[in-house]
Amino acid sequence: MTSANTKPAASRFPIPPIDTLPEDIRSRLLAVQEKSGFIPNVFLALAYRPDEFRAFFAYHDALMERDSGLSKAEREMIVVATSSANQCHYCVIAHGAILRIRAKNAEIADQIAINYRKADITRRQRAMLDFAMKVSQLAHLVSEADFAEMAAHGFSEGDIWDIAAISAFFALSNRMANVTAMRPNDEFYLMGRLPK
Amino acid sequence: MTSANTKPAASRFPIPPIDTLPEDIRSRLLAVQEKSGFIPNVFLALAYRPDEFRAFFAYHDALMERDSGLSKAEREMIVVATSSANQCHYCVIAHGAILRIRAKNAEIADQIAINYRKADITRRQRAMLDFAMKVSQLAHLVSEADFAEMAAHGFSEGDIWDIAAISAFFALSNRMANVTAMRPNDEFYLMGRLPK
Amino acid sequence: MTSANTKPAASRFPIPPIDTLPEDIRSRLLAVQEKSGFIPNVFLALAYRPDEFRAFFAYHDALMERDSGLSKAEREMIVVATSSANQCHYCVIAHGAILRIRAKNAEIADQIAINYRKADITRRQRAMLDFAMKVSQLAHLVSEADFAEMAAHGFSEGDIWDIAAISAFFALSNRMANVTAMRPNDEFYLMGRLPK
Amino acid sequence: MTSANTKPAASRFPIPPIDTLPEDIRSRLLAVQEKSGFIPNVFLALAYRPDEFRAFFAYHDALMERDSGLSKAEREMIVVATSSANQCHYCVIAHGAILRIRAKNAEIADQIAINYRKADITRRQRAMLDFAMKVSQLAHLVSEADFAEMAAHGFSEGDIWDIAAISAFFALSNRMANVTAMRPNDEFYLMGRLPK
Amino acid sequence: MTSANTKPAASRFPIPPIDTLPEDIRSRLLAVQEKSGFIPNVFLALAYRPDEFRAFFAYHDALMERDSGLSKAEREMIVVATSSANQCHYCVIAHGAILRIRAKNAEIADQIAINYRKADITRRQRAMLDFAMKVSQLAHLVSEADFAEMAAHGFSEGDIWDIAAISAFFALSNRMANVTAMRPNDEFYLMGRLPK
Amino acid sequence: MTSANTKPAASRFPIPPIDTLPEDIRSRLLAVQEKSGFIPNVFLALAYRPDEFRAFFAYHDALMERDSGLSKAEREMIVVATSSANQCHYCVIAHGAILRIRAKNAEIADQIAINYRKADITRRQRAMLDFAMKVSQLAHLVSEADFAEMAAHGFSEGDIWDIAAISAFFALSNRMANVTAMRPNDEFYLMGRLPK
Repeated sequence: MTSANTKPAASRFPIPPIDTLPEDIRSRLLAVQEKSGFIPNVFLALAYRPDEFRAFFAYHDALMERDSGLSKAEREMIVVATSSANQCHYCVIAHGAILRIRAKNAEIADQIAINYRKADITRRQRAMLDFAMKVSQLAHLVSEADFAEMAAHGFSEGDIWDIAAISAFFALSNRMANVTAMRPNDEFYLMGRLPK
Repeated sequence: MTSANTKPAASRFPIPPIDTLPEDIRSRLLAVQEKSGFIPNVFLALAYRPDEFRAFFAYHDALMERDSGLSKAEREMIVVATSSANQCHYCVIAHGAILRIRAKNAEIADQIAINYRKADITRRQRAMLDFAMKVSQLAHLVSEADFAEMAAHGFSEGDIWDIAAISAFFALSNRMANVTAMRPNDEFYLMGRLPK
Repeated sequence: MTSANTKPAASRFPIPPIDTLPEDIRSRLLAVQEKSGFIPNVFLALAYRPDEFRAFFAYHDALMERDSGLSKAEREMIVVATSSANQCHYCVIAHGAILRIRAKNAEIADQIAINYRKADITRRQRAMLDFAMKVSQLAHLVSEADFAEMAAHGFSEGDIWDIAAISAFFALSNRMANVTAMRPNDEFYLMGRLPK
Repeated sequence: MTSANTKPAASRFPIPPIDTLPEDIRSRLLAVQEKSGFIPNVFLALAYRPDEFRAFFAYHDALMERDSGLSKAEREMIVVATSSANQCHYCVIAHGAILRIRAKNAEIADQIAINYRKADITRRQRAMLDFAMKVSQLAHLVSEADFAEMAAHGFSEGDIWDIAAISAFFALSNRMANVTAMRPNDEFYLMGRLPK
Repeated sequence: MTSANTKPAASRFPIPPIDTLPEDIRSRLLAVQEKSGFIPNVFLALAYRPDEFRAFFAYHDALMERDSGLSKAEREMIVVATSSANQCHYCVIAHGAILRIRAKNAEIADQIAINYRKADITRRQRAMLDFAMKVSQLAHLVSEADFAEMAAHGFSEGDIWDIAAISAFFALSNRMANVTAMRPNDEFYLMGRLPK
Repeated sequence: MTSANTKPAASRFPIPPIDTLPEDIRSRLLAVQEKSGFIPNVFLALAYRPDEFRAFFAYHDALMERDSGLSKAEREMIVVATSSANQCHYCVIAHGAILRIRAKNAEIADQIAINYRKADITRRQRAMLDFAMKVSQLAHLVSEADFAEMAAHGFSEGDIWDIAAISAFFALSNRMANVTAMRPNDEFYLMGRLPK
């Protein structure tokens, strides 16, 4: 589907040449390329706006890299479930790959993307996703009853903030990816699907 | 409705005492208090998480303060219209106040919050809000036909990015405000309603 | 936004000159002008059809002026909440003003219009608005379970009828206001917002 | 299903004994019984509140009995289509009967209740029902483009008001019938179904 | 509305002449005509595709003719309720007729088509229709809690399968009828409405 | 996630032992096992009801194996797109695998499942899926305008029937899979993802 010559665009907006980018952004791109072997298209697409790029990834890292009562796999579950509800091509493919790797489970991402209510997850994780989906789709209805339900599943107030904030951040991310027609890199499709 | 003793909480999550906050955040709070005469509750509510606070306001400022083909009043129109669709108490009240001031128009915020299709705005602004609402509510349906429609109203590609990014950012913001039960400060209700 | 010469129309349908109206309607217009200092546009817009005008205001008064277990402020809360759900420009602005005055509360109307679930109201008033909204948006699902819930909050059968009937009447009113592009008078925007 | 002893209630609210009703209401009930051979339950259900009864039927008659560019059958089509969308038991059964009689067509009411887009009606009537349904379900989206479309089908401004007002009035009526669990009289089911 | 010469089409797709049909299909058509006095249009419309015709009626009969904990009238209730939700002209009219006959009740089909929650049915039948409607409209939300609720109403696992399978089969049938603009035969409208 | 001992159930309903099944069904199961190397769970789940099993697969084969203006890959696209809209775990995973194989494309199934509007497909295929989705979700709105649009993309009447019938058949299939909690076999997840 892709070749060196006709590689589909990472975004419908222009992608600045890497060597024209501000030094901090260029460094981040090179670091992620070094680590992953390729530059995920979200980095290229958002480089169109350096200040927004910086804020986006600072926010992302604050939520996804912090110490939390949620495992990194659980955080990716939230991303995949809510991004699927928002029909976000880039986010489901890219974060589905990350989820498979974090959870060391080749099936979990597809299950959560299609219908998380039928996925092989714990009851606590199911409650986590129910709340994340309510924040994603009907945040105006969130009430103290939801907090009590979450507490009953053992989530701390900080955990609940994390779930809400990840769901909210990807509400932003999903919209930007859909508007920019952000394309997932081919590499993501197979990541985490094969036994090591 | 409020008194020194029983002032309703800015957020259902804890608000750290200002003097315990990191220096950069404390400074920003004092600066906004100096400028506005009070600290808008969004600053207090998000101070619960300093890293997210920094990313949030960096993102906000990147969108709302940058040079743009959209006036500052137009950007606030986007905030008010999409926040109303998301039933976000804090955002409609606080940004409604800012919109009245930016637009020097005491009626415009209420009109846009209730039904922007009937508001006293230009056809170009109406198209801007139609697109912002599509990004806010149905981003998965955004297509090149929308870009063509926007171009026909004279919006540049950069303008379209601005509209989408503001709508997407407040998708995040509205969800955080709803989950935290963020309370608009009393000061906002009357701002911009009285002739100078 | 308005001047003597270019005052925006009260309705997209013709407004009959006041002196051509039937005597009873002309008298009502003059009486309301005497009392309020201006003629709310709903009186002008509906004068297009005298028989419907008479029935409309007879119905309105039967519901809003009668002795009831609901205070007049509570009845206006129902109007504002359901009219906001129906995105009715005229009704939210005009009845928001009346609500502020009846409740002697400058903030309550905006709170209820945006998300009544977060408004500074009692639990009983919240139950009242939950029921009113169900009648407004999903009346086919109303069942005896709803009546039991309302009774548990202390509402009599007559009170429940009042809530339902006000919600139903403004279902009519909101639709007429939206179709006629009924414009709220400028006077409403600031009414009840300033301390006496 | 019914017997003299256990006849199901016309409404879940109390029905006042006819001889206790105000004279004007009692007369109307007797007149309709004289004419139809039975008292349609809407008259009994609404007699619970005499002032609202009077306003309701005054409004009804103003719309349904006036001279109009719409035939009486067409007006009943609007009632049946919008009442079906609102799942109003009483209104679909009772006005379905009236529609069959007015249109002298035994099939038309069922067709319009189920899916008016497939009914045996003219293109003009189809446009009439499309507009009536928009007023009924999405009045906040009605715009000048709808008026232009209706004018193109030959509807005058007065006709458009009639369509909107009937749709709006039955928005009220459907909600009252659903909340009161208003029961259609057995007589309606077969009316107009048999060739004369 | 119909005459020998201009009888409206049974389907917007071509209807093969009966004598050109495969023998087994021709036999079925003649058998149903013998039994009912007319050929219901679904037999003509689907004869366009003999293999699909065979599978469709084999499936239909497997569900509607089998021994079941559900009476035949109850099975028709499921068809009418879900077909009405799907606005399927043919299915509501034709199966409404069959329901009236099976239930020996002239009112039940109209009641269930309009709002089954207000129909004269038992609490068990109401639970049956609630489940059938969830399968019809929101099958992705069906969970073990629904099975427990159904068991509490005395439904066996086999009964629950029957309800689900009938609802699912008419999800197919309703869509084919809507796409083919399948027209109910005139005969259905009055069937089962008159006392024997 | 699975082991020989604790293999998750193919369905929440009982699966009959294969050697107790009617001969024709047992033969089909063995034939598919011979061909695929495993028995897809849909065969086991539906064997609970032999007559429905026979009708289901007869219908399936009539649509998916027939000569058609649609390629087999295109037919699977319809299955994946509509099954994803219905959040059907089994159908998206199993038919996603078949689509990858039929289309010889490792990415296409995930793209279509998430948001077919952004998938790497032709404009004709996009029109095909738009129509299939309308049949799947809003069949009551299908009209001659849709047929004209499809004809403009070169689809014959027979092709349009095929698209509608596949969408309708999987409306049935998706509901049965969701109600039975039908589990996709592990084998499907990786099929067609690796270059040969």
